[in-house]
Amino acid sequence: MNFRTDLAIERKEYNEKEKLDGVISCCEERDGIKITRIEIIDERGERLLSKPCGRYITIEAPPFIRDAGLFSSAMTVFSDELKSLLPEKGSVLVAGLGNEDITADALGPKCLNLLLATRHISRELRESLGLGELRSVAGIVPGVLGKTGIETSEIIFGVVRRIKPSCVIAVDALAARKTQRLGTTIQMADTGISPGSGVGNSRSRIGRETLGVPVIAVGVPTVVDAVTMTADILEQSGAGEGDFSEKLKSQEGMLVTPKEIDAIIDRAARLIALGINTALQPELSAGEILSIVS
Amino acid sequence: MNFRTDLAIERKEYNEKEKLDGVISCCEERDGIKITRIEIIDERGERLLSKPCGRYITIEAPPFIRDAGLFSSAMTVFSDELKSLLPEKGSVLVAGLGNEDITADALGPKCLNLLLATRHISRELRESLGLGELRSVAGIVPGVLGKTGIETSEIIFGVVRRIKPSCVIAVDALAARKTQRLGTTIQMADTGISPGSGVGNSRSRIGRETLGVPVIAVGVPTVVDAVTMTADILEQSGAGEGDFSEKLKSQEGMLVTPKEIDAIIDRAARLIALGINTALQPELSAGEILSIVS
Amino acid sequence: MNFRTDLAIERKEYNEKEKLDGVISCCEERDGIKITRIEIIDERGERLLSKPCGRYITIEAPPFIRDAGLFSSAMTVFSDELKSLLPEKGSVLVAGLGNEDITADALGPKCLNLLLATRHISRELRESLGLGELRSVAGIVPGVLGKTGIETSEIIFGVVRRIKPSCVIAVDALAARKTQRLGTTIQMADTGISPGSGVGNSRSRIGRETLGVPVIAVGVPTVVDAVTMTADILEQSGAGEGDFSEKLKSQEGMLVTPKEIDAIIDRAARLIALGINTALQPELSAGEILSIVS
Amino acid sequence: MNFRTDLAIERKEYNEKEKLDGVISCCEERDGIKITRIEIIDERGERLLSKPCGRYITIEAPPFIRDAGLFSSAMTVFSDELKSLLPEKGSVLVAGLGNEDITADALGPKCLNLLLATRHISRELRESLGLGELRSVAGIVPGVLGKTGIETSEIIFGVVRRIKPSCVIAVDALAARKTQRLGTTIQMADTGISPGSGVGNSRSRIGRETLGVPVIAVGVPTVVDAVTMTADILEQSGAGEGDFSEKLKSQEGMLVTPKEIDAIIDRAARLIALGINTALQPELSAGEILSIVS
Repeated sequence: MNFRTDLAIERKEYNEKEKLDGVISCCEERDGIKITRIEIIDERGERLLSKPCGRYITIEAPPFIRDAGLFSSAMTVFSDELKSLLPEKGSVLVAGLGNEDITADALGPKCLNLLLATRHISRELRESLGLGELRSVAGIVPGVLGKTGIETSEIIFGVVRRIKPSCVIAVDALAARKTQRLGTTIQMADTGISPGSGVGNSRSRIGRETLGVPVIAVGVPTVVDAVTMTADILEQSGAGEGDFSEKLKSQEGMLVTPKEIDAIIDRAARLIALGINTALQPELSAGEILSIVS
Repeated sequence: MNFRTDLAIERKEYNEKEKLDGVISCCEERDGIKITRIEIIDERGERLLSKPCGRYITIEAPPFIRDAGLFSSAMTVFSDELKSLLPEKGSVLVAGLGNEDITADALGPKCLNLLLATRHISRELRESLGLGELRSVAGIVPGVLGKTGIETSEIIFGVVRRIKPSCVIAVDALAARKTQRLGTTIQMADTGISPGSGVGNSRSRIGRETLGVPVIAVGVPTVVDAVTMTADILEQSGAGEGDFSEKLKSQEGMLVTPKEIDAIIDRAARLIALGINTALQPELSAGEILSIVS
Repeated sequence: MNFRTDLAIERKEYNEKEKLDGVISCCEERDGIKITRIEIIDERGERLLSKPCGRYITIEAPPFIRDAGLFSSAMTVFSDELKSLLPEKGSVLVAGLGNEDITADALGPKCLNLLLATRHISRELRESLGLGELRSVAGIVPGVLGKTGIETSEIIFGVVRRIKPSCVIAVDALAARKTQRLGTTIQMADTGISPGSGVGNSRSRIGRETLGVPVIAVGVPTVVDAVTMTADILEQSGAGEGDFSEKLKSQEGMLVTPKEIDAIIDRAARLIALGINTALQPELSAGEILSIVS
Repeated sequence: MNFRTDLAIERKEYNEKEKLDGVISCCEERDGIKITRIEIIDERGERLLSKPCGRYITIEAPPFIRDAGLFSSAMTVFSDELKSLLPEKGSVLVAGLGNEDITADALGPKCLNLLLATRHISRELRESLGLGELRSVAGIVPGVLGKTGIETSEIIFGVVRRIKPSCVIAVDALAARKTQRLGTTIQMADTGISPGSGVGNSRSRIGRETLGVPVIAVGVPTVVDAVTMTADILEQSGAGEGDFSEKLKSQEGMLVTPKEIDAIIDRAARLIALGINTALQPELSAGEILSIVS
C-alpha cells in the first residue's frame, strides 16, 4: 500500500522489517530531543525509501508549542544539525516555499518574515550598529505557481544566477503519515526539494543539479493526507483496500491537521527562522538576533 | 457507535433505517440547491437525533467556491429560508461566534465583518444617503472563553439585556460527519446553540430560555473530527472499535478540512453575511448592501 | 488656538506660562524613563486642561521599538504605575477599544490578544498547571459603533452588569499634538474615557458614573491630527489662522503617523498587554505569563 | 523649495507659471474621470520635472472608495489607458513592489493577490475551463531590501532573464505632494521606476536600460511626506524655511495618510489588479476574470 509522506524517517519505519540495503542510519538523544540520521547511499536505498541519495536528519521533540524551554532546546539542536549540512563559508540564499494564503502551507513565507537578511548591510552600517562579522544572507518568498504563473524553481534559479550564493536553504511545510508528527518533527536534508514530488515534473526540481549549488531542504510536517490516514486505518483494521476505493476517493483533497494548526505554524516558523539565523551568524548572540528581526 | 456532528440532517441519515417517531421532515429543490426541513416535535425525536425540539433547515449546494452563479443562488435560497425563521419585525442582534485566530473556527467573526449594522444610523443620515426604511440591526463578536475569560453566552446575555433585540442570530462554524459537507452545506435552526454541546454545561446555552428572545442558529460545517472519521471508516470496514481505541485516541484533537479551507471560510462568511443582510433589509438592493459593507 | 490631543501632559505644556490653578503635578525619572503625575483637583483645572478631575500619569520613554532593554524598562515602569491606580483586590475587566481594521486604531484589540484572561480558570486547572494564586481577569473587544451598531459603552455596560468586576481597564489608541510622542508615550488615568470626547455625547462615556465601578484608561498616542499639526505650524510661523482656513479644511480626515506605524502598534500592544498582566498577576513570573499568552 | 512627489502632474503644476520647454501635455475627461497626458521629450523637460523622458498618464477620479459606479468607471479608464502603453502582444511580467507589512506601502503586494496569472495554464486546461485565448501573464512579489537583502531590481532582473517577458508592469505605492490626491489618483508611465529615486542609486533602477524590456510603472499615491506638507504650509504662510529647519527635522519619518488608509489600499489594489487583468485579457469578460481571481 502506498502512502504520502515527505519524511525519510517514516519511509524507513514503514520498511523496518526488511533489510535496508543502501541505507545507513543512527540515532542520538540530546536534551530530550531525538535525532535520527539517515543516509541513502545508492539506488537500492533510493528505491526502498523513494527518496534521492543524500543525508536526512530528523529531529523529534515533544510538542514545542507554548513551552519556552522545549522551544529553546529544539531550536538549538536544529541549529546545530543544520550547521553540519551547510558549507562553512560563503553567502546563503534562504527560500520560503509555499502559499502564505493557506494556513498549513504558510510555514516557508512566515519563516522568512523572521529571517535575518544581511547581504545589504554594509561594513559601515554593521560597525555603527556594534555588530560583529556577519555572514551574507539573502531571502526570497517565491510564491506558488497558481498565483505567479512561474515555477518556484525558475524564480530561485533566476535569483541564484544573479546573486550567486554558496548554497540555498529551502524551507517548506511537509506532509507526514502520522498525526503525532505534526508540530513535533523537523527534517533537514542535503538533497534539495521537489515541490509536488512524485509527479515526475523535473522542471520543478530545486537541487544542486538544477541550481549549481547545494540545496538544504528544511521542513516541518503540518498535515497528514486524509487518503493516507484512511488507507492506514483500513490496512491496520485488516480490511482490503479494494472495497474502499470510493471511500478513499471521497477523502481526496482533504487534510488532517491539529486543531491548533494556526499556532503551530507560527511557532514552527519562528523556531526554524531563529535556528537558521543562529546557525548562520555565530558572531551574534540570541538577543542581538531577536532585536534585529522582531 | 457515537460520532460528532452538529448537523440534524446527518443525525437523521444515521438513523434512517429506523422509524423516526417525533421527527417530521421534507425535501425540496430550487435552482440546483437542495433544501431539507426537519422538525423535532417531541422528546422521542430529541432522543433519536440528540438535538432539542425545533425546526432545522439544511441547504445543500454544489461547492460554492469560485462559482459566482452558484454563490448567488445559494445566497438567495439561504436568505429566503432564513427569513422564514425570523420574526417579521423588530430589531435583530447578530453574534459571530468562534475564534478568529483559528482558520476553521473563524466563520462567525469573519461573517460579522460584512454585516450591515444599522442600529446607529439615524433617520437623517439614512435619508441623506438616499436609503429606504432600514430594520435595526446590531452585531457583536463575543470572542472565546479561553481568550476572554467570559462565556460567550454571558456576553450576549449582557448585550441583549441592554439593547433588547426582538431576536438573535448566532453564526458559528460547525462540525460535520462527512467530508463532502465541508463548504457545501448550511444549517439554520430556531433552537439556539450550545457551544461545546453535549458537555452538559447549561451555563453556556444560547437560546430563548436563557436570553428571553428567540435565537436562530446559522452554521456552515468546516471540519470533520478525525476521531469521527476514523470510527466511521472502521465501522464500514467491518472492524470492531474495541481493537482500535488507541488508534482513535491518537486522532484526538485532529481535524479534517479541505485543502482550500482558508478560501472556503472567506466565501462562506461572505455568503452568510450577504444572506443575512438581504433577509433583514428587503428595502435595499443587493448593490446598495454591497456598497455599504465592502 | 485649539488643537486635538488626548494627553493631559500636552494640555499642561500648552498652558505652561499660566498659573495652573486646580492642577498639581510632579515629575520623576527611573531607568531613563520620565514619569509625570498630574492631578486635576477642581473645576478650574478641568477648564484649563479640558479634562475631567482625576489623576493622569504619563510615561515618556525613548522609542521602545526594537530595543529589548528599553522595552523591558518601559514595561516595568508602566506596570508599577498602573498598579498604583488599581484597586488592590477584586476581579478586573480589560476592554480593548478601537477598530482592528484600521492600523493606527488597532492598539486596543491587538493588546487584548495578549491579555492573560483567568476568570475561567478553575482552582483545579490552576493547580494542575502549577500556577500560584491568580487574580480574576476577563477581557472584551467591543468593536466600533460603525461596525456593530452598538455604542462601545453599551457593550461594556452590559458585560459589567453581568460579570461585576471591581474595576475596568480601557485600552485605546490616542491622538497627540506632537509627532515626537508617537510610539514613545503612555498615558494612564483614573478618570475613564470618552470615545469621541468633546462631541458632548454623554451616552458614550465609559467611567465610574456610567458603569458604577472605577475605570482606568490606558492609552498610547499613535497619530497626530493633520489639522492640529498644520495649525501648530502656522501658529509658530507667525501666520494668522484666518487666512488658512481652506488649507486646514483640506487636511480634515488626514492623520500623521510614523512610517513604521504597523510595527509601533504591535510593540505598544505587547508592552501594554504584558504590563497589565504583570500588574494583575504578581504571583506569576514574566516567563510564566509569556508562556501562557503567546 | 524642494518637495517630495512621485507624480509628474504635481511637478508640472508646481512649475506651471514657467514656460515648460521639453514638456508636452494635454487633458481629457471621460465619465467624470480626468485624464492628463504628459510627455517629457528632452533634457530640458527632464530637468524641469525631475523625471526621465517618457509618457506619463494621470487619472484623477473622485474618491473611488465605496462607490461601485465610480470604481467601475475609474477601473475602465485605467485599463484603457494602460493598454495604450503596453506592447500589443507577448507575455507580461507584473511585479508588486513594496512592503506588505507596512499598510501604506502594501499596494503592490496586495495587487498581486488579485492578478490573473496565466503563464502556467496549458491550452488543455484553458479549453476545459471554457476560456478563450489567454495572454501569458506572470507575477512576482519581490519583497523589500531590508527583509530580503536583495535589491528589488536584482530579483526582477533574475526572473526576466529566466522567463523573458515582452514587458514588465511594476505596481507601487507613491508619495504625493497634496493630500487630496490620496486615494483619488493613478499614475502610469512608460519610463520604468526607481525605488528610492533621487538617492542616486543606479543599481536599483527598474527600466528598459537595466532589464532589456519596456517597464510600465503603475502607481497610486498613498502618502504625503510630513516634511513636504510642512514645507508647503510654511511657504504658503509666507514664512522663510530657514527659521523652521528644526520643525522640519522633527517631521522626518512621518507620513500623512487618510484615516481610512487601510480601506483605500484594499480598494486601490483591487482596482489596479482588475484593470491590469482587463487590459491583458480582452477575450475574458469581467465576470470570468472575477470568478478566477477571487
